[in-house]
Amino acid sequence: MKGIVLDRSLPSKIDFREVEEKPLLDHQVKITLKAAALNHRDEWCRQGLYPNISYGIILGSDGAGIISEVGKRVSNWKVGEEVIINPALFWGNDQKAQSKDFQIIGMPTHGTLANTIIVSSDRIHSKPKHLSWEEAAALPLAGLTAFRALVYQGNIQENDRVLITGIGGGVAQFAAQFAIKKGAEVYVSSSSTEKIEKALEFGSKGGFNYREKNWTEEALSKTGGFDLIIDGASGDPLNDLIKVSRPGGRIVIYGATRGNPEKLEARRIFWNQLKIIGSTMGSDQDFQAMLDFVNQKKLHPIIDQVFQLEDAEKALDRMKAGSQMGKIVLIP
Amino acid sequence: MKGIVLDRSLPSKIDFREVEEKPLLDHQVKITLKAAALNHRDEWCRQGLYPNISYGIILGSDGAGIISEVGKRVSNWKVGEEVIINPALFWGNDQKAQSKDFQIIGMPTHGTLANTIIVSSDRIHSKPKHLSWEEAAALPLAGLTAFRALVYQGNIQENDRVLITGIGGGVAQFAAQFAIKKGAEVYVSSSSTEKIEKALEFGSKGGFNYREKNWTEEALSKTGGFDLIIDGASGDPLNDLIKVSRPGGRIVIYGATRGNPEKLEARRIFWNQLKIIGSTMGSDQDFQAMLDFVNQKKLHPIIDQVFQLEDAEKALDRMKAGSQMGKIVLIP
Repeated sequence: MKGIVLDRSLPSKIDFREVEEKPLLDHQVKITLKAAALNHRDEWCRQGLYPNISYGIILGSDGAGIISEVGKRVSNWKVGEEVIINPALFWGNDQKAQSKDFQIIGMPTHGTLANTIIVSSDRIHSKPKHLSWEEAAALPLAGLTAFRALVYQGNIQENDRVLITGIGGGVAQFAAQFAIKKGAEVYVSSSSTEKIEKALEFGSKGGFNYREKNWTEEALSKTGGFDLIIDGASGDPLNDLIKVSRPGGRIVIYGATRGNPEKLEARRIFWNQLKIIGSTMGSDQDFQAMLDFVNQKKLHPIIDQVFQLEDAEKALDRMKAGSQMGKIVLIP
Repeated sequence: MKGIVLDRSLPSKIDFREVEEKPLLDHQVKITLKAAALNHRDEWCRQGLYPNISYGIILGSDGAGIISEVGKRVSNWKVGEEVIINPALFWGNDQKAQSKDFQIIGMPTHGTLANTIIVSSDRIHSKPKHLSWEEAAALPLAGLTAFRALVYQGNIQENDRVLITGIGGGVAQFAAQFAIKKGAEVYVSSSSTEKIEKALEFGSKGGFNYREKNWTEEALSKTGGFDLIIDGASGDPLNDLIKVSRPGGRIVIYGATRGNPEKLEARRIFWNQLKIIGSTMGSDQDFQAMLDFVNQKKLHPIIDQVFQLEDAEKALDRMKAGSQMGKIVLIP
């Protein structure tokens, strides 16, 4: 198989090259990939910022394609079927949290930025029929993360007033789309007016530029505060989110791109009966529920731009620059 | 009526004196108090550390006594009935959080450190028959706070491994007692070996001295981590609580005696799927549920020491010193 391999020795840190394929095990399937999509995780791996990096590994967690070979003990899938891949490995049986063995496809095991991939047959699901290959590949990791954050951890309710921060991000966009389809009143935040406008186009009620000093006052006066906030930034701005929460509100954090907060308004948390809830990726149950929801609501992921697989460096540079709105897709 | 009045002009800041009684309104009852109990709130009021302090007010949130007069529109209570008082005023109809009008008896309205008190009839409940007057007076504020933190916000489950921090505190003791009766495996923490031993006597499984540097490692190796932690301290030690939480665990904070944390391990929160949940006091629904539970389980509050009402200064000094284990009770 041929794919985008992490290579410490190159200036770009990646190389498009042949990798030795292991023989198919009895419980596995081989998939000819039709499309893959990027996540920040891939760029962090390239920058050496992800824990436990192995070099020589094909990057990529998101992919969709056609089954080209089926292991001896796999009875429920056939060659030729169109599938998407759940990139969460070894979650375990506890819906509350992943097991210690938890991994994500694309590090330390070979990923989806390739022409083919071998995965355990329990990782594949029928590709939603209303989605193109590009859209199907865009869905798994970010869709799963958003769905668990919003539904299982965030316990979203119809008519909740919801704030999704950093709407430029893939998880944020799925969270906003899912929340709208759940019947919530959705607001977004971003440092980019363009991205806020894009979010209004797909059904958000309003947006706030978090670079503006008085955005919390504006948000409070416009909305009266939020029942649920979905955030991937953490850092000191977490205290702004505490400020714009309604009493009894929930703040779900699924990342910390802004690092650890250097203070926390504890009094506001207990006096306002707030919940700060951590979430990451999702269980098999979350993935199935997400997929059912996408199928039921005929939801389409937002695509930013499509690259050829050999142009992965350009695609990763675009992700690093952070100007994208929607998923960046790669076609082998 | 005569009671312990907050008086800025005195060195002790309190005075035992006569206060003009207002006429009984139609929806109110007058209670001849048989016992009252202290909370940290009373001492903070004395020290001028509580928000919106009014001088000339009788302190005290906890009390039990006998109805001595009934307002014209009160049909469900009779003179001579034995009652305890729910000190939470104007919570409102939302179980998730208190309304903006929320108050606590004993500031800014006259409290229970008195021979009599007038309250709205919807604030009184029959005194649990298995409790002495001292025990009944010890129950309301701390019991309510503990019950909401543990049950409604903390969602305690049978067999949960629970840590109650600062077991010297009244709320902590109720939380530990309730958690044990809920079938949880309860551990406590304190800076005092004596208090930990006392907690073992009433059914806790183990205890940790949080002054010892390696207490988190000890707790993790002994217990494998906690499903639920109930904490009134916040501050930087909150990060220790994050550390000793099991994946998917809940940390309920009902106070911040250690102030705001100056950092927060956000990555650990989202990666371990933790919940940090604020809680304060409780709704009327929480109070009723707490009272039902205390009656059903025949639970007895822990009493530290009983003082005469006129010795309130000594009683408050004992609370300030922090060496008590159990509620400090005052008898008019």
